[in-house]
Amino acid sequence: MTDIFLRACFGKPVERTPVWIMRQAGRYLPEYREIRAQHDFWTVCRTPELAARVTLQPVERLGVDAAILFSDILVSLPAMGLPVAFRPGPSIAQPVRTRSQVEALRVPSPPDDLSFVLDAIRLLRKELAGRVPLIGFGGAPLTLAAYMVDGAGGKGFPALRTLLYDDPATARRLLDHLVEAQGLFLEAQIEAGAQAVQIFDTWAGLLSPDLYKTFALEPAARLVERLRRPGVPVIYYLRDAAHLLEAVGRCGADVISVEEKIPLSRAARLIGPGPALQGNLDSAALLASHDVIERLVSEVLDDVPKDRGHVFNLGHGILPQTPVESASFLVETVRRRSRRPDPAGDVATRASRGPSNG
Amino acid sequence: MTDIFLRACFGKPVERTPVWIMRQAGRYLPEYREIRAQHDFWTVCRTPELAARVTLQPVERLGVDAAILFSDILVSLPAMGLPVAFRPGPSIAQPVRTRSQVEALRVPSPPDDLSFVLDAIRLLRKELAGRVPLIGFGGAPLTLAAYMVDGAGGKGFPALRTLLYDDPATARRLLDHLVEAQGLFLEAQIEAGAQAVQIFDTWAGLLSPDLYKTFALEPAARLVERLRRPGVPVIYYLRDAAHLLEAVGRCGADVISVEEKIPLSRAARLIGPGPALQGNLDSAALLASHDVIERLVSEVLDDVPKDRGHVFNLGHGILPQTPVESASFLVETVRRRSRRPDPAGDVATRASRGPSNG
Repeated sequence: MTDIFLRACFGKPVERTPVWIMRQAGRYLPEYREIRAQHDFWTVCRTPELAARVTLQPVERLGVDAAILFSDILVSLPAMGLPVAFRPGPSIAQPVRTRSQVEALRVPSPPDDLSFVLDAIRLLRKELAGRVPLIGFGGAPLTLAAYMVDGAGGKGFPALRTLLYDDPATARRLLDHLVEAQGLFLEAQIEAGAQAVQIFDTWAGLLSPDLYKTFALEPAARLVERLRRPGVPVIYYLRDAAHLLEAVGRCGADVISVEEKIPLSRAARLIGPGPALQGNLDSAALLASHDVIERLVSEVLDDVPKDRGHVFNLGHGILPQTPVESASFLVETVRRRSRRPDPAGDVATRASRGPSNG
Repeated sequence: MTDIFLRACFGKPVERTPVWIMRQAGRYLPEYREIRAQHDFWTVCRTPELAARVTLQPVERLGVDAAILFSDILVSLPAMGLPVAFRPGPSIAQPVRTRSQVEALRVPSPPDDLSFVLDAIRLLRKELAGRVPLIGFGGAPLTLAAYMVDGAGGKGFPALRTLLYDDPATARRLLDHLVEAQGLFLEAQIEAGAQAVQIFDTWAGLLSPDLYKTFALEPAARLVERLRRPGVPVIYYLRDAAHLLEAVGRCGADVISVEEKIPLSRAARLIGPGPALQGNLDSAALLASHDVIERLVSEVLDDVPKDRGHVFNLGHGILPQTPVESASFLVETVRRRSRRPDPAGDVATRASRGPSNG
């Protein structure tokens, strides 16, 4: 198998920088839009054959170094007792704001309630046949709590913040519930065959450093701790989080995904030694000319400290209006420009780190 | 006149911390909703009597220490040749993306094209009769460019970012145009009677530090420079900008408005000596209990370095679902908790600074 992605996650020597693209299975691909013309979003997520098909599309089309399961971070909420509608943003009819609502939440049983995810993973491992590793994923506790408490995304989640201030005990209880639920779910994804997992803490960047440490980082770190398996890296994603980077290394993840507006060299300095970095080309660069893409890819590659593991990616998800051709050019450019003549030459400086979960 | 707000902007001694609330004239007030039930948003902005009426509402209802003109940062775009519709977010039918489109933009003449703003200011100065100072405002060049290039807000402005990469010369030309247009507009607001101006660089936080310095900070600093008038402070607002605070002091503004997720003590350290700070209670705190509001107000007040000018405000705009009662309690709490027994005692430590534009 091409394990260049996994090696980079653990900061081991690589002959070139691996690359994948957040939301690589999605709306910018005509073959994805074709499937979505026939099936709604939830149906694609919940039908293993469809989820597997769209997961494979960018692997075949772009030649990325990892596949990521097509799914949604809210996929486990219905099994907790919270149906989610997409119109097109997620919407939850009964937001969770009281202690009794939290106590009434179920912990989903992945083999029973989320078998469609596990079946998709098993199917994908067969169809990928070792070509590239498969990444599973899920929402971090705070980020899922944000949707559950506010009932909808995109407006800064004021109800969540109010709950953290007004009733921290209930917030903690909800977060504990989510550590347990997401722990079981992501463990099941790994057992089904996911070779890495990415935890999306998409909205943690809304919080001040103090609130973040208490209500986002602490539960995320517990979740990461539960997921430690030899050879299976954990990636932690967050955004609008420049004010949190000094704390974020403590989440224990092998890789921190960095948004495009923070230079990787600065992120490395703030995060401190340890985790590899993922990122961080501006997704808007893919709407520019090839010359610009080439220049910006080089800037990202050159900005990574030499002793640091690096997985190339965008800072956020790929934009729906991205020309497929530019996504291909990105992958080709990263491969070409990051090639190292003698990867073994790096061993001396890197071998001391080894896999952080080895 | 109660000039406590103006004194705090210049870091001069004050007997207590002045307080106003971003978007204080707006949807959380029933008397505002009553007016909006009869007139659409643009009509209120463009009718001096209506704009003045809603501007005064929070002064009368809450007893804030400054009034801010009811208007919109996009108010000058139609006069540049770009009509803006609100549905409810702003939408521009013909986004500006080419050199020839930039060259075709007009520089509005404030007395002719924006007289409704200047008339509202003159009317307000009369009606306020010195009770509290009146703040005028406008969009920073980069932030107006974001709307003009993307044609709509809220999606991360990818077309703007692509333009900065693909055609920086056209971007610069657009920003130069906006420095000139906003310079004239804000100068006219001051001449009409605005006693302070706030420049909203709402979307500058999307940019990396390098892009920010070139395309946001540099034009904003030119705009600030143009607006220097003895006794008229300039406030610079930005958000999601923790990664930019080390640069932001160079904008030359007298006051930097700080979002709620960055503690003011940290912001002061990053910004460096000089400007006063405005902020930064979490707007979600106003949805919590009075006990919580009281505690969080105290935390903000206690976190301001002793030698620093401070204007109390929220980190962002007030949320529409805020109980009016909680907004009143906020103002009352800031007044009560920030009272200094002997303001003159501060003079020794502060007098050396004086107004930064004096």
